[in-house]
Amino acid sequence: MTTARYTQKDLAGFVTDVLVALGNPVEMARINADVLVWSDLVGRHNHGVIRLPALVARVRKGLIDLGAEPELTALSPGTERIDARHGLGQYAGHLGAARAIALARDTGIGAVGVCNSNYYGIGACYLHQMALEGMIGVALSSSAPKVAAHRGRDPVMGTNPLAFGVPMPDERTLMVDMSTAGLAGSTVREHAEKGWPLPEGFLIDKTGAPVTDPALASKATLLPAAGAKGFGLGLMVEVLSGVLTGGAISHQVLSIYNDFSGPARSGHFFVALDVRRWMPMEDFHDRMRFLTGVIAAAGGDTRLPGESRWRAAEENTRAGIPVAGDVMERLRDHASDLGVALPPPRAVAGVD
Amino acid sequence: MTTARYTQKDLAGFVTDVLVALGNPVEMARINADVLVWSDLVGRHNHGVIRLPALVARVRKGLIDLGAEPELTALSPGTERIDARHGLGQYAGHLGAARAIALARDTGIGAVGVCNSNYYGIGACYLHQMALEGMIGVALSSSAPKVAAHRGRDPVMGTNPLAFGVPMPDERTLMVDMSTAGLAGSTVREHAEKGWPLPEGFLIDKTGAPVTDPALASKATLLPAAGAKGFGLGLMVEVLSGVLTGGAISHQVLSIYNDFSGPARSGHFFVALDVRRWMPMEDFHDRMRFLTGVIAAAGGDTRLPGESRWRAAEENTRAGIPVAGDVMERLRDHASDLGVALPPPRAVAGVD
Repeated sequence: MTTARYTQKDLAGFVTDVLVALGNPVEMARINADVLVWSDLVGRHNHGVIRLPALVARVRKGLIDLGAEPELTALSPGTERIDARHGLGQYAGHLGAARAIALARDTGIGAVGVCNSNYYGIGACYLHQMALEGMIGVALSSSAPKVAAHRGRDPVMGTNPLAFGVPMPDERTLMVDMSTAGLAGSTVREHAEKGWPLPEGFLIDKTGAPVTDPALASKATLLPAAGAKGFGLGLMVEVLSGVLTGGAISHQVLSIYNDFSGPARSGHFFVALDVRRWMPMEDFHDRMRFLTGVIAAAGGDTRLPGESRWRAAEENTRAGIPVAGDVMERLRDHASDLGVALPPPRAVAGVD
Repeated sequence: MTTARYTQKDLAGFVTDVLVALGNPVEMARINADVLVWSDLVGRHNHGVIRLPALVARVRKGLIDLGAEPELTALSPGTERIDARHGLGQYAGHLGAARAIALARDTGIGAVGVCNSNYYGIGACYLHQMALEGMIGVALSSSAPKVAAHRGRDPVMGTNPLAFGVPMPDERTLMVDMSTAGLAGSTVREHAEKGWPLPEGFLIDKTGAPVTDPALASKATLLPAAGAKGFGLGLMVEVLSGVLTGGAISHQVLSIYNDFSGPARSGHFFVALDVRRWMPMEDFHDRMRFLTGVIAAAGGDTRLPGESRWRAAEENTRAGIPVAGDVMERLRDHASDLGVALPPPRAVAGVD
């Protein structure tokens, strides 16, 4: 099948129409669509529109509530809790980051915990949202258990991604965005789908034996990144997104792909820190330029976190965002059910 | 030489006397001593009294100012900057954590950045300080560059430790405390001193070739933990402790051991988050018990972060804190110069 390219606007418009047809209020649908399509824009396709069919399937089973209005509770001048009430995680994530920004504007630092949410995509999107407002940002999310404790055997936590972002002079936000497992869940899924063998040292089976066969990957347990370090970071995400928000903990969070026994109940946690309270933004930018200059001058072949994302965004803005033919095929089925028109391709990019 | 054991009180009293004799105001000296000795109490001896001779050497060269009064600047209701004015990092760390607690008490979350400080010991100490006040805590510190960027060659950042702590039902604070390099600087130093070969994959030489020979370790460059992940976390520590505080960045931070050309200028960053704004502490404790119960039930041989520290503290409280004979020998030299009496040994623990 052929990969076609679409403008960001057309692709987001299409996703918005699908969500509105399913009952999402239009302002929420626009944000959900923008977050999903932004992942494709920056080249993280496995968190972009490819996820829409799985999300729609959960909407149709009543496990995601597109009509839900998140409930906000002020806890203190600098902290807030949001109950997402089983709406889409993309909107809950955007709202969480927006509220963290607003709190930080008042008090210098704001933290927002979100419970009863869903898969929220990539944390980088919320980092960029915060950075454009002059905020250093943190975005965390719990997910369904796939990862063992350090020296443990069965899964106890999700890949619990941790993201940290910094406003940069050229608006190309520095975006650290990592799975606290050795591999991201989406990387494992991609290897399993394409039959690529997995690197050694990242997965074990129920007896603790190593797994590299992609056919066994979906049933295998991930190991935390760098042993005790990744386990500690995963716990940090679980405590802030799960324990502290009052939401689901560990196995109380369900997979959006494999478990239809109830809503997914992911939790998120956002922190925004207002740079301008510390120094004028130009001074901060100068100091970041100094640090990145030292790194560039130290030899090797380094890249700043997020650099490859911004290169992809530049290319996809110019040429259109590529969507693989099989993905568009699945989206076409949903679209025709709902009477939604497919986006007009901007160009045919190649053959899958 | 023989290892003797001392009570926590006697050892801290001795360190206090040494610091007071060198010009540290007594209230500051007590805190500096408590922080140093706490490391020994929890079994992290390479961050305990073993460091006192190196610190005293810098005091005598005028590179650490024991008389300096830290300067506090309120930035916003939730944030504060401290200029440690080249005093000891242990006091600056304690003060930073204390101010973060005070801010979080008012606004729910507080952040404190510290510049112009020194080596602050182990972040775990400040996590426990925050946890005893009902705070989830973060403690970060920059240090002199020893670590390359991911895919880089020369050192650009310190081992930049990251610490995260959670109040626990039994007051045994959950303490995630890690170097963002693959190995801690103190681990490398210990291997170099004892001639133990280093594990593969953690150090490179100036050409990028791997180093495992302990004799070459002190001149080798560390790699970040888990490649891009550790590099991203190290950057997070550098941005918050160095760039944002207005203090030293990258090579502007000097080694306390090797560089006598100026003050060390480490930076620190503390965040405290008041759990009681989210739920009653008993509910939070119940939820933490649930999470740790899931981890314990999942098989393998898991330990919670900090668990081995608390076991060491129990043993050392009972039997006394062990100080190796050669360490006490070095301390004896300083003590006699200053007219300070050595602590009375509680027991002789064995032969080194």
